[in-house]
Amino acid sequence: MTDATDADAADRPAATPPDLPIAVDAMGGDRAPAEIVAGAERAAAELGLPVALVGDPDRIGATSLEVFPASEVIGMDDDPGQGVRRKKDSSLVRAAEAVRDGRASAMVSAGNTGATWGAALLRMGRIKGVARPAIATPLPRPGCDTPLVLLDAGANADAQAEWLLQFAQMGTVFARQRFGVDRPRVALLSIGEEPGKGDALRKEAHPLLADPGWADRVGAEFAGNVEGRDLLQPGVDVVVTDGFTGNVALKSLEGAMRTLIGAVLGAFDTDDDTRAAGEVLMPALLPLYGQLDPDATGGAMLLGVDGVCIISHGSSSATAIVNACRVAAESVASDLVGAVTRAVRPES
Amino acid sequence: MTDATDADAADRPAATPPDLPIAVDAMGGDRAPAEIVAGAERAAAELGLPVALVGDPDRIGATSLEVFPASEVIGMDDDPGQGVRRKKDSSLVRAAEAVRDGRASAMVSAGNTGATWGAALLRMGRIKGVARPAIATPLPRPGCDTPLVLLDAGANADAQAEWLLQFAQMGTVFARQRFGVDRPRVALLSIGEEPGKGDALRKEAHPLLADPGWADRVGAEFAGNVEGRDLLQPGVDVVVTDGFTGNVALKSLEGAMRTLIGAVLGAFDTDDDTRAAGEVLMPALLPLYGQLDPDATGGAMLLGVDGVCIISHGSSSATAIVNACRVAAESVASDLVGAVTRAVRPES
Repeated sequence: MTDATDADAADRPAATPPDLPIAVDAMGGDRAPAEIVAGAERAAAELGLPVALVGDPDRIGATSLEVFPASEVIGMDDDPGQGVRRKKDSSLVRAAEAVRDGRASAMVSAGNTGATWGAALLRMGRIKGVARPAIATPLPRPGCDTPLVLLDAGANADAQAEWLLQFAQMGTVFARQRFGVDRPRVALLSIGEEPGKGDALRKEAHPLLADPGWADRVGAEFAGNVEGRDLLQPGVDVVVTDGFTGNVALKSLEGAMRTLIGAVLGAFDTDDDTRAAGEVLMPALLPLYGQLDPDATGGAMLLGVDGVCIISHGSSSATAIVNACRVAAESVASDLVGAVTRAVRPES
Repeated sequence: MTDATDADAADRPAATPPDLPIAVDAMGGDRAPAEIVAGAERAAAELGLPVALVGDPDRIGATSLEVFPASEVIGMDDDPGQGVRRKKDSSLVRAAEAVRDGRASAMVSAGNTGATWGAALLRMGRIKGVARPAIATPLPRPGCDTPLVLLDAGANADAQAEWLLQFAQMGTVFARQRFGVDRPRVALLSIGEEPGKGDALRKEAHPLLADPGWADRVGAEFAGNVEGRDLLQPGVDVVVTDGFTGNVALKSLEGAMRTLIGAVLGAFDTDDDTRAAGEVLMPALLPLYGQLDPDATGGAMLLGVDGVCIISHGSSSATAIVNACRVAAESVASDLVGAVTRAVRPES
């Protein structure tokens, strides 16, 4: 994956460390708090970023970082809406409040995705003009310099056509700022390439997306429909869909990758000959594994809320948190929120 | 994959060759007519099945098989609805008419999927009580004896909750008859395992599926929600969804598999050492490739029309057509249509 600070430096402000700390939800994720705390400390030490932890000081333990105390945790299995409403002293809610109140520059969480969305939406609020914030997930593609940006990856299960147009506008800004794609090619996920293919939502969204007005204004190009099999291929940079379909597609891709990698590794382990052959092949396969490693991408971005909010995957390691903090700092420095605000103005 | 005739022979009639020929659309598919004709001839010779070709006799050329003439072809890029309505002498429409008129026992096509659905629906008609026929696609799973049955894989882009219940009933019959799963576990594709997760359609469908009445009657078990990442895992036998989501999920899985296999084979081809290691590993990897080969599954089944209709994938080889004819003959012999008819009775 291209490092966003190198790819297109001329277009964007340099990623200088933000003055305010990045608020890292210490309690969120399968490996919290230990891996999360370790990642936050590494981000501060290795990247020179100001980082604060949000959570229960007793469970966080000794740390060199500032701690924003929060006594409650919204678990991975908690209902997101109830969790955010009832656990007002949870690490997620407190992290979002820190951004809202100007005590943090951004938030990072590997916790409950729906609750992260809810906490950010309720505490930070939406950017003016945004109908619904969406989760933009970068999908690494073997052999491609830049990942595909898929949105919405799960926040809005039921979507409207106009929202998909806003997702296209926000995704364009994200692909440009984060991955240096100068003029992103944006496509609609459907079940056939012809404009009329798809369900009622797609048939309504296609003409909105095909209108060149928005694309010219934000510097994008509408590339028509793509299908599920195109998601890991080069050709387009941003794919928009409703949160239900986006989440199913994302998890289908992840599941297929995991299943197939497991089956290939199983074949390597057949006997001594295949084990030896597998060792010869490992150096050639490692770049592929590295490219597909979700810890390397820095996580998904919640676009459309009035603040930078990174959603890391639930199994995030310390390395994933380091990368998430790096992306958060870059997004603050490049004024991602300002760029999204300008991109979602209604078409005249 | 388990051979359907061996797995559960006691439950079902033996697969005796049907008296009427299987009508094979000679003009449908990327490799038509040559590969399709070759496959049909092999099915007749190797399996002892009566097979007829449907299409343009001049383009089919010399053949030992009976030919049902049809002067038109509905192309892969033709609009399905227009194609079926306007090309009344197309091979697809004539194949469906042959089944309707009692001149063929079943139809097989590797052509335009939407047009196959349309031709079967309009010419064969629906089974009484079926709201919408659905495409049931078997998904091979590495390490599993039986594939997952996913439906609807693309026929009904906009679906209603009651249809998903019928898909569950039809999918149960299909998993039992074709793959010998005695009491199929049926799940709803969603974006979270809890019953309340998903979009409006899923929230409406879940309680219908969770009602034990239908499952007891057809001999199934409702297993709740599954996510995209579960589709290649063991655990459930049938997954129901709308045709839009089903098609996106199916193509996402196929795309991920193809991309990853390509990347792994690319790593094998790095230098002489990796090429040699790759050759050592090939025998261990071949069973995996064989299991994932779509030509081996015999194609998807259109469930809910009043006749057996196999939808083979567009790139079908002669081997894929042989397997499709075998599955067609088995489905006729086991009275799949009768079993579906009994399964879709409205719940009392």
